Amino acid sequence: MTSLIAVVGGNEASPENLRLAEEVGRELARRGVALVCGGLGGIMEAACRGAKEAGGTTVGILPGSDPSAANPYVDIPICTGMGYARNVVVVKSAGAVIAVDGAYGTLSEIAHALGEDVPVIGLNTWSLAIDGRQDQSIIRAENAVDAVEKALEAAQRRKKR
Amino acid sequence: MTSLIAVVGGNEASPENLRLAEEVGRELARRGVALVCGGLGGIMEAACRGAKEAGGTTVGILPGSDPSAANPYVDIPICTGMGYARNVVVVKSAGAVIAVDGAYGTLSEIAHALGEDVPVIGLNTWSLAIDGRQDQSIIRAENAVDAVEKALEAAQRRKKR
Amino acid sequence: MTSLIAVVGGNEASPENLRLAEEVGRELARRGVALVCGGLGGIMEAACRGAKEAGGTTVGILPGSDPSAANPYVDIPICTGMGYARNVVVVKSAGAVIAVDGAYGTLSEIAHALGEDVPVIGLNTWSLAIDGRQDQSIIRAENAVDAVEKALEAAQRRKKR
Amino acid sequence: MTSLIAVVGGNEASPENLRLAEEVGRELARRGVALVCGGLGGIMEAACRGAKEAGGTTVGILPGSDPSAANPYVDIPICTGMGYARNVVVVKSAGAVIAVDGAYGTLSEIAHALGEDVPVIGLNTWSLAIDGRQDQSIIRAENAVDAVEKALEAAQRRKKR
Repeated sequence: MTSLIAVVGGNEASPENLRLAEEVGRELARRGVALVCGGLGGIMEAACRGAKEAGGTTVGILPGSDPSAANPYVDIPICTGMGYARNVVVVKSAGAVIAVDGAYGTLSEIAHALGEDVPVIGLNTWSLAIDGRQDQSIIRAENAVDAVEKALEAAQRRKKR
Repeated sequence: MTSLIAVVGGNEASPENLRLAEEVGRELARRGVALVCGGLGGIMEAACRGAKEAGGTTVGILPGSDPSAANPYVDIPICTGMGYARNVVVVKSAGAVIAVDGAYGTLSEIAHALGEDVPVIGLNTWSLAIDGRQDQSIIRAENAVDAVEKALEAAQRRKKR
Repeated sequence: MTSLIAVVGGNEASPENLRLAEEVGRELARRGVALVCGGLGGIMEAACRGAKEAGGTTVGILPGSDPSAANPYVDIPICTGMGYARNVVVVKSAGAVIAVDGAYGTLSEIAHALGEDVPVIGLNTWSLAIDGRQDQSIIRAENAVDAVEKALEAAQRRKKR
Repeated sequence: MTSLIAVVGGNEASPENLRLAEEVGRELARRGVALVCGGLGGIMEAACRGAKEAGGTTVGILPGSDPSAANPYVDIPICTGMGYARNVVVVKSAGAVIAVDGAYGTLSEIAHALGEDVPVIGLNTWSLAIDGRQDQSIIRAENAVDAVEKALEAAQRRKKR
């Protein structure tokens, strides 16, 4: 059975964050880890491109019904037809989630992951506070290699529980 | 057709926030607005109790398959069997969302709502920031009456678009 | 808490089956039972119209995101945004399902109901066979009154288990 | 992008049908086609075992949240947490569906596929009739090779439309 790590992030992103996502994809593939994502453009496409450059496997969980809506670097397109409810499937299928940048869809993925005890690693992504206190649940990473290493460690720790 | 306003919040909350949620439910019912929520305890139950005290209608979108899991103030229990993916249904069914307090499930509901252009009114709930900038999309309310008035105004404006 | 009975059937149907669905809706409302359905036209609309004529309550579980897609006799539109996966929610929310006529969507609702032990009452609907044997799980009804009585009995028996 | 063909069938089946499912999996893999299924036992496990014997790729769309619930021949487990609503995802992700044997879950998959114009090939599976007329939409196959060939042809024809 393949270990899956999710990379989540929006359909549009800055060149810097796209570069980060691509590097995250590449580093996952180098470690033999398959990548799962929402299957569309932006951060998702950059991460898949990075993974494929390094010979990895990519799974795209699509909101719609048309597999050809997947970005060209998705090996296995899954069509849910469930719109943004597919975000839940992306994070539940992963041992850990790496969030890069972020639109509201990404925020929902972070929230679903934290709510289901799936570790979240953050790269230039949302900060959360409630009642004047910062929420520290997102594990911050310095760069792509750091994010991938922290994701694999966190997925491993979770598996042992 | 009934207008629905969602009240979202966690299964556990402080006495102050439970009181707020109950008042929100009451104020919605007084204005003839039906309430939709996740159907369980805490903020959801307090809001439903308030609504029923004032003769309102309450809909509970449950994560599981057993209607008797609904809190006793739910008139119409909907069983999704879809776990937290039901959060998407709660917000999509509403003209606006009032978030009180908040666990990660609540954060996912705020994120899904903002991602789908459903207005979110916040009472003692999450603050969001990205790239060092505060996200101002949540409309802050001072108290329960203010929250209900802002929710109805926002739902009305959205309908006109 | 309101008891819900589902009426399932396609967006298009013969005048005879539309008349049957309307009568089913009316008979449910006369017995104080709320109706849940897929919220659209054809059998769903006829059943809701019958229920509203007799002062009943109607819930429509919609495939899309727009509450105004509901037929005009739906009191409470629930927007799932999940396409045909909403069929699962229709049957899981009901104590029993009355199937009138039937497209493939109706067949999926019958199948999901039988798979989850929700009793199915059939009026001019699908027959099923496997390995040369008829499947007898659908409880056949003679007319609308018979269907409603059998649905309420079956829902009652199921609740006691 | 990988072409996916779904194999659907129940958690329990006769030795004959398990053998058929295994052969279907093997024949898909020999043609370089990846298999998608519900990820559990019975027909699903037999098909995945056949596919892995012939060096194929297998995707399991699970109803729950635990990837280790997948049968041991699933390469890529997708956790939906959506119960039987995951059946919709299995068929929507496929170019065609091969149904072997069948419980009610299988019937729901056949119904969802036919409702969404995904071709269904049947091996010892459900027969459907309505209004005294047989429904001929399921394409009957004689054996595993015939089923796989008909599935690939049907998926190809559909793609061209």
